[in-house]
Amino acid sequence: MTDFTATRSLFQLPDGVIYLDGNSLGPLPRAATARMTQVMQDEWGEMLISGWNHAGWMAQPTRLGDRIGRLIGAEPGHVVLGDTLSIKVYQALAAALEMRPDRRVILSDSGNFPSDLYMAEGLIRAFGRGHELRVVPPEDLADAITDEVAVILLTQVDYRTGRLHDMADLTARAHAAGTLVIWDLAHSAGAIEVDVAGTGADFAVGCTYKYLNGGPGAPAFIYVAPCHADVARAALSGWLGHVAPFAFEQNYRPGAGIERMRVGTPPVLAMAALEAALDIWDSVDMAALRARSITLSELFIEKVEATCPMLELASPRDPNQRGSQVSFRYEQGFAVVQAAIAHGVIGDFRAPDIIRFGFTPLYLCEEDITDAASVLARIMAERVWDNAIFRTQVGVT
Amino acid sequence: MTDFTATRSLFQLPDGVIYLDGNSLGPLPRAATARMTQVMQDEWGEMLISGWNHAGWMAQPTRLGDRIGRLIGAEPGHVVLGDTLSIKVYQALAAALEMRPDRRVILSDSGNFPSDLYMAEGLIRAFGRGHELRVVPPEDLADAITDEVAVILLTQVDYRTGRLHDMADLTARAHAAGTLVIWDLAHSAGAIEVDVAGTGADFAVGCTYKYLNGGPGAPAFIYVAPCHADVARAALSGWLGHVAPFAFEQNYRPGAGIERMRVGTPPVLAMAALEAALDIWDSVDMAALRARSITLSELFIEKVEATCPMLELASPRDPNQRGSQVSFRYEQGFAVVQAAIAHGVIGDFRAPDIIRFGFTPLYLCEEDITDAASVLARIMAERVWDNAIFRTQVGVT
Repeated sequence: MTDFTATRSLFQLPDGVIYLDGNSLGPLPRAATARMTQVMQDEWGEMLISGWNHAGWMAQPTRLGDRIGRLIGAEPGHVVLGDTLSIKVYQALAAALEMRPDRRVILSDSGNFPSDLYMAEGLIRAFGRGHELRVVPPEDLADAITDEVAVILLTQVDYRTGRLHDMADLTARAHAAGTLVIWDLAHSAGAIEVDVAGTGADFAVGCTYKYLNGGPGAPAFIYVAPCHADVARAALSGWLGHVAPFAFEQNYRPGAGIERMRVGTPPVLAMAALEAALDIWDSVDMAALRARSITLSELFIEKVEATCPMLELASPRDPNQRGSQVSFRYEQGFAVVQAAIAHGVIGDFRAPDIIRFGFTPLYLCEEDITDAASVLARIMAERVWDNAIFRTQVGVT
Repeated sequence: MTDFTATRSLFQLPDGVIYLDGNSLGPLPRAATARMTQVMQDEWGEMLISGWNHAGWMAQPTRLGDRIGRLIGAEPGHVVLGDTLSIKVYQALAAALEMRPDRRVILSDSGNFPSDLYMAEGLIRAFGRGHELRVVPPEDLADAITDEVAVILLTQVDYRTGRLHDMADLTARAHAAGTLVIWDLAHSAGAIEVDVAGTGADFAVGCTYKYLNGGPGAPAFIYVAPCHADVARAALSGWLGHVAPFAFEQNYRPGAGIERMRVGTPPVLAMAALEAALDIWDSVDMAALRARSITLSELFIEKVEATCPMLELASPRDPNQRGSQVSFRYEQGFAVVQAAIAHGVIGDFRAPDIIRFGFTPLYLCEEDITDAASVLARIMAERVWDNAIFRTQVGVT
């Protein structure tokens, strides 16, 4: 059983801060700085170029990939780290379109994170082969899956509301129509139980700087289902995805399985910080974490609704239908978030009116939740956004 | 005038090692670990999500880009950091092809680094619009520039021989044919004087972990000429290249100028190490560095040729026609490099028979060069590769 009191002590959290924004950027694992110093001084500094082999840098993207793989229910050997989430979306999309050459539609929903849609838009424009990005409301997805659709690109947890897609159900519906699915797990990995293998997901991508606490700009990951791993082609065919990178052949030959989803030189220093974060994750039971996340978020909703009647719950009320965040709607939401931050409660705002709080059991406890709710209640009672000086300070015009 | 004795003290160099492989991975700047610790502890640890604004993380890719820009003769505001070199090659290629829609040929040479060719191959395959990658010997390039060619993709300095392309001449020939040019500066930036603005280069890309000493997996950079900056379209259209990323609009609108070449979340930790490296570069005069690089490499050639008649110079003899490396050909080159490494002289080997040494004046002096040449002479005299035990140890079969 994961001891969540113990995990809290493994993070550096500033005094006087209740951090409900680990869904944007996770906090610093205390061990990360020492690990980074070791990699810089003892590996880069002393091994120099030989670090690629002697310190195992070259194998790190798949080694860390497997540790993330456990958290998302992936088969070992089918996750690799590198690049950014946007790049991994592009890779998965390009591979999927090639696997469905007779279909022209990329289906997504309006709850998807805009960058995923932008990447699809840019790919379609660059390919110039008449693909169409069809974006429907999340609730219309199931009906929009037709045999025109080559691939569905979805973020499982809506970044604004926390609404959670049923991965098993949508994947099954897609497969019944001969459609592939790419799951963006940006707000899922380390937040909820995910089972990419069990649900038959074709591709999954995600980032490691949110719930996984890998640090600002930490690398992304990609999962390719075993049945596709040796079929999917990498449009971004860089030398480390080549079957024999150090043969320096003139022509590209894709590497085996997930290796072909590597592109350029791996981000060794960024991986050092992530490694320290994964040392914590290795001992976490995802079912226990999910249960604890629900306990904390239910407590928060209860307290806030009892004291802040003006805030309207924007997240699904059923905890099984949301990720590990809770959002409220309020017209003056931006000012409310700014006031909360000024009082040490860090959440964030998403236009036009969403106040968003993330629940991260590794370093949050009940007391944090009730304290945060109290701060919010005080801010709402004081109507600080009516104060002209405050409005000037936080830039509300 | 740059004081190269002073710059040497700014790097951590292992005892007993003469490092002639800074063209693969530069050594650790002594200040980098402290800078990294500060970014991790004081920025990530204490500022958490607000580091994006308060610590200036969001602006770092263009701020550091300008500091690299000075080293390659770019106009301020036209270089941005991010991703890997392979990704930046793809971005430049995709943008260039869109600017020459009626042409179908990507021209490159057989001295280009394979990853650049692989990226072009993958792009052509993914686009599926009948583009052709035409690879000619370097000496045939000038004649191969015809009005069929949309874009020329060249690495200025050949990674094996160090042969240096004349950027001004080839760019002028290309432009006369209505052809665009992408210069890969992987072995140029921080190695030789480069003038992307003066030569009229359309695009330039490069990495920061070689001569620039940014650390293993440090981010890449891309330059887009001012005349193209608001025209070039980003096929990899990520949210940080959007004109208003935090408006979370559903459709992509490219950002102004070089900003549109940003893709995903910037690698903040990797940039911290690079920043410490650029603190050193800021005071370096590139003409003085180039002169010093020539002095050191000429000395090395002189010493090696005097004592190792079996090694055949693979680099151009004229220092103005090579970058900051010197290569020799020898059938048993792999064993020679392994033996040199065992004696503390780090160079590297490139198949099938190239022994490669990089000259990096920031931390190398005449004594290093003469000592390295002596070690090489001893190895060649001892014919260590004829020794069966040695052959087994270094894996020569």
